[in-house]
Amino acid sequence: MNSRIQQLRKLLDKENLDAVLISTLPNITYLSSFSGFTTEDRDAYLLITKKRQYIFTHPIYREVAQKDFSDFILVEYRRNNPFHKAVKSIIEKEKVTSLGFEAFDLTVNDYEVLTQEINKKLLKPVNLIDQLRVIKDVEEIQKIKNACKLGDKTFSYIFKKLKTNITEKELATEIEFFIKRNNADISFDPVVAFGPNASQPHHIPDGTKLKKNCFVLFDFGVKLNNYCSDMTRTIFFGEATKEQKELYNAVLNAQLASVDYLKSKLAQKQSVHAPTIDQVGRDYLTDHGYSPFNHSSHGIGLNVHESPHLYPSSNDYMESGMVFSIEPGTYSEGNYGIRIEDIFAIENNKLIQLTKAPKYIITI
Amino acid sequence: MNSRIQQLRKLLDKENLDAVLISTLPNITYLSSFSGFTTEDRDAYLLITKKRQYIFTHPIYREVAQKDFSDFILVEYRRNNPFHKAVKSIIEKEKVTSLGFEAFDLTVNDYEVLTQEINKKLLKPVNLIDQLRVIKDVEEIQKIKNACKLGDKTFSYIFKKLKTNITEKELATEIEFFIKRNNADISFDPVVAFGPNASQPHHIPDGTKLKKNCFVLFDFGVKLNNYCSDMTRTIFFGEATKEQKELYNAVLNAQLASVDYLKSKLAQKQSVHAPTIDQVGRDYLTDHGYSPFNHSSHGIGLNVHESPHLYPSSNDYMESGMVFSIEPGTYSEGNYGIRIEDIFAIENNKLIQLTKAPKYIITI
Repeated sequence: MNSRIQQLRKLLDKENLDAVLISTLPNITYLSSFSGFTTEDRDAYLLITKKRQYIFTHPIYREVAQKDFSDFILVEYRRNNPFHKAVKSIIEKEKVTSLGFEAFDLTVNDYEVLTQEINKKLLKPVNLIDQLRVIKDVEEIQKIKNACKLGDKTFSYIFKKLKTNITEKELATEIEFFIKRNNADISFDPVVAFGPNASQPHHIPDGTKLKKNCFVLFDFGVKLNNYCSDMTRTIFFGEATKEQKELYNAVLNAQLASVDYLKSKLAQKQSVHAPTIDQVGRDYLTDHGYSPFNHSSHGIGLNVHESPHLYPSSNDYMESGMVFSIEPGTYSEGNYGIRIEDIFAIENNKLIQLTKAPKYIITI
Repeated sequence: MNSRIQQLRKLLDKENLDAVLISTLPNITYLSSFSGFTTEDRDAYLLITKKRQYIFTHPIYREVAQKDFSDFILVEYRRNNPFHKAVKSIIEKEKVTSLGFEAFDLTVNDYEVLTQEINKKLLKPVNLIDQLRVIKDVEEIQKIKNACKLGDKTFSYIFKKLKTNITEKELATEIEFFIKRNNADISFDPVVAFGPNASQPHHIPDGTKLKKNCFVLFDFGVKLNNYCSDMTRTIFFGEATKEQKELYNAVLNAQLASVDYLKSKLAQKQSVHAPTIDQVGRDYLTDHGYSPFNHSSHGIGLNVHESPHLYPSSNDYMESGMVFSIEPGTYSEGNYGIRIEDIFAIENNKLIQLTKAPKYIITI
């Protein structure tokens, strides 16, 4: 039997629930390893009760369900035989009196439809799978390591493609094709930003041509066996001035400050409130006269952004088995954007860096 | 001023609403032409009142908002200054007493957060933008034509790549790279399915190698200037037997039956209930001893699947300005899957075919 479903049933007990309805695609992948449902339409739901597990899907996924969800009971739904009626009959049959659902994912419409058949009082918003996903097992960390390794290879490949007049869009496409030729997927649309374009953290690569003497920011990730990597490198195309080198090194040192802080806390077996990691980096930048970043580092796994949350209002604490980015940056509108991002895991209370591409200032 | 926002305000009047909250990404694109927000996180909402239009987004999208939403008032939200409080203050200031929201897209969590600040009685589930999007203007149809044209080019390109032992995955990657090298995007992950693999309509291309004498199904789409194409072609690799040719021609004739039915209805200015189009094709297959398809044709535009809905339970009627697929198929588990899909538009009450790749039986 699927050990993740066993763990999930323990959480059901803990939360006094008889069952949980799973609608989030990566959560469906987590419980099955299948990742072929589209995000365009709602293709499947899982219902996990104390004794059985069900997959609800369209007839067009029948073969998929039989193959990739072989330990699930298949319930086909159609527009004229909708899933909420099937859910109701199972709930009645198994005498479910409390049903968890993913309020952060389920739409208001789906909820309204569901509560036409099921008493609202039965339904409890939960995020149980997140509690499981936030702590990665050895196999999951290995998958993220593999994704990061291909990310590193991608960086050393793309790095050699830099030349005067190449466009951001061309480089972004090269990144994507390299990853896909290596039988992986991108975990998000690659960002390539020249000079002032990088002052928008989410710049969309365009026809801007590369000219000498500017920073070039690459932010991209690999998805391999469903697990994501994410990495940002900023390099200098040309000969950086002393001031530009100092700017770069301020960001690098901000990252090292966050890393050292976390390492020393772990070594002392002290608890680490997740947002303090970025705060150390922000403080470093502020103390040295640079403007701190307003984005945040983040957990990573089946999603490129997931728990643990490192943003300022997060209540998460760092634990062994967590995998996350540390990514300080400094930005000046109309001038530049510099960011350095690596992925780290805590294994047996030790901090391990998974992305390994060089990050001393590279000038070409 | 943005004419789509003017049209939307007319719908607000018609529906007795003072304002509408837009959360769906393609709807945000429809009202702005900007398509750079990620699906991973909820990056932006639009609020359209009778007099003003607002964009709520994170500070990291500030430059985007200023550039691509220049006729919107920018309201930045942060985790410690959430959007529902900003929505509330606008609603109070503009004396909004009824607010539409997209219940098919908004999550239960977002709704709960919103209704902490806003009386539930003010909120009305609506799908206003869908009413606008279902009827395309000349410019939109031209964009879909351009996407279809690149789809046709892609088909004639990929067609020449067929050879013994090439894998489905290799061909799918070739389709994707060709489209992306032409400065477009894929509208969904391409499907390439050899022989029995095609009996699953949503087969995921894998390492299956091409061997002589089987059907090969291609289902792929282009996204160009935000608008989608979609096309399916089934060809025969080898020399088809008489029976195989008959099978193929049955599907082709089913499609032609649907097309002729729709054309004659339009010529007679008779109303056409959308599901009858596929039903004509299904009936043709059944009458000739082949099993009919259980999927449905669909509208297409900013989404690859959108209104008009052609599935059996749809209440839509066909109108000028609609763009949609007609895609019959027949499947036999473990044996084959044959499907032919083209995109059509109704322009001035005439049916126009937008995809033009050949669809007589091609044998290689």
